[in-house]
Amino acid sequence: MTPDGLAVRTGAPVAPLGRRGRRHVDVPDLVARARDGEARAVARLISLVEDASPLLREVAAALAPHTGRAQVLGLTGAPGVGKSTTTTALVRALRAAGRRVGVLAVDPSSPFSGGALLGDRVRMQDHAGDPGVFIRSMASRGHLGGLAWATPQALRVLDAAGCDVVLVETVGVGQSELEVASLADTTLVLVAPGMGDGIQAAKAGILEVADVFVVNKADRDGADETVRDLRYAQSLGGRHAGPGAWRPPVLRTVAARDEGVDRVLAEVGAHRRWLEASGEGARRRAERAAREIEAIALAGLRERMGEVRGSAALAALAGEVVAGETDPYRAADRLLASL
Amino acid sequence: MTPDGLAVRTGAPVAPLGRRGRRHVDVPDLVARARDGEARAVARLISLVEDASPLLREVAAALAPHTGRAQVLGLTGAPGVGKSTTTTALVRALRAAGRRVGVLAVDPSSPFSGGALLGDRVRMQDHAGDPGVFIRSMASRGHLGGLAWATPQALRVLDAAGCDVVLVETVGVGQSELEVASLADTTLVLVAPGMGDGIQAAKAGILEVADVFVVNKADRDGADETVRDLRYAQSLGGRHAGPGAWRPPVLRTVAARDEGVDRVLAEVGAHRRWLEASGEGARRRAERAAREIEAIALAGLRERMGEVRGSAALAALAGEVVAGETDPYRAADRLLASL
Repeated sequence: MTPDGLAVRTGAPVAPLGRRGRRHVDVPDLVARARDGEARAVARLISLVEDASPLLREVAAALAPHTGRAQVLGLTGAPGVGKSTTTTALVRALRAAGRRVGVLAVDPSSPFSGGALLGDRVRMQDHAGDPGVFIRSMASRGHLGGLAWATPQALRVLDAAGCDVVLVETVGVGQSELEVASLADTTLVLVAPGMGDGIQAAKAGILEVADVFVVNKADRDGADETVRDLRYAQSLGGRHAGPGAWRPPVLRTVAARDEGVDRVLAEVGAHRRWLEASGEGARRRAERAAREIEAIALAGLRERMGEVRGSAALAALAGEVVAGETDPYRAADRLLASL
Repeated sequence: MTPDGLAVRTGAPVAPLGRRGRRHVDVPDLVARARDGEARAVARLISLVEDASPLLREVAAALAPHTGRAQVLGLTGAPGVGKSTTTTALVRALRAAGRRVGVLAVDPSSPFSGGALLGDRVRMQDHAGDPGVFIRSMASRGHLGGLAWATPQALRVLDAAGCDVVLVETVGVGQSELEVASLADTTLVLVAPGMGDGIQAAKAGILEVADVFVVNKADRDGADETVRDLRYAQSLGGRHAGPGAWRPPVLRTVAARDEGVDRVLAEVGAHRRWLEASGEGARRRAERAAREIEAIALAGLRERMGEVRGSAALAALAGEVVAGETDPYRAADRLLASL
């Protein structure tokens, strides 16, 4: 393991590999080094999958046998609820328990990736030099389908790199909290007192995705009210009504002082056991994989649609149709087969 | 040939074949009968291609060797300029010259096909019992790509049925005049005096698609002004500027009295000779075939995209990905191959 355990890179965002020109990359070696916990190898693999490099498929194939072990925690909430602080506190607690941890900070409003954000620099100071933590900022703006595209691939890298837990943190804006929940085994929804979050949560459909509610900044005025609001909103929802169903706990934390964080992890553990016992965990993993395959298949079809327009083969086929040698349907079949 | 030369069917629109249940259809026999000029066979073939029947491909393949002979005339113009009357007069003149004629009346605002429109009934009376005329109304609303989808296939049916000329008539609303021009060898743009059409034509891009301008109702006040407006607008355009280029003539007709119609057909003939001599005719035919192939290929890809979502194969592949037996990219390849 290298002394710099952080996959964070500061400075300008990474250009897609294509623009830098091809360099020889030994994928099996890179995967072997990532599995040994080498941060640079992990960072490089994430860049390869995130930039949709020509090696993407080779990387995915090499990672596959080493995946399926990591527990994925989704963390979402409105700006200002203390997501970064909570992530830092959770990482600290997980490290204290000897777990290897990955963090993917997804910023749906940012076109930049690679860890140039202020938040990472702050966290970096906290975990600098710890070889058991990988932190990576990911942009989702500009990516087809936002989180859906690159994040699952980055998750696979961290999974194969031996992370016991991967935290996926995203700002709860627009659809991102639903997307993060679709990636996670367990979704933590953070709220803070005095922000009307209890009511907003119900509106935004956050109740449907939360496995654990965390009322952070619980030392502030209004914390009791926020907890009560959430429980009331929960009582109205039907999702967790059945016997044997998981009832999302509403917890209090002051993440800046590490208060309540162990309790959060205890509930995460309880949820994990419930996932396994109920079969819901297997169902979520299968659904996640299905969505991933579907997204890749659809992207492939869209790419072929782009190739159809203006393809060189088209002109030759058009000539055959004009001559009555073939019909447009057989020509279209041959066009698609040729792409 | 049957005594009823008209492909017009009145009454309710035809339900897609699928909803009527499959019946045995002998496609080669149908094509042979259509080539003999049997109106019912022509109508049936158009229905098969228009309804995207399962036999569509077989029909297209059977038609291919017999296509490429018909001259396609596009006819477009704003409502009220006298398109139906002009079509009727053109058909009369073409029949007098012994030509076999097909008419496709495309109504972009109508969801109904098959010839149930008033316009067809009127024309039907004019050409009833003439085995050398096929008339068909086609809806384009609701079809993917409007005219782009079914009309070229219907054109092929009429072409294979031995039509010397096929008139494609559409209301010049929205993009339809551009679409009809993309289907036609020669595009006639109809205007009428006192409708400000000269100026509107320039705006709507009609100048770009017209091969022949027809100022119909030329006995009305303002006809001279309309002709002058069109010539002025033409002088501003750059398309027909080069040497050897076709300069669209501006003709006058009173279609209701058959006045000027022979002159229109003479110019259509001159345009056809120019098309062949200049190579523009071959270019247009090739471009038309390419667009047709492209539309079919894109529709096929869109169909596959629909199949990806919710496919049964997806669940099995997801299981393999979860187990680490394959990666999502290989799974996506296999999913697409299986559809």
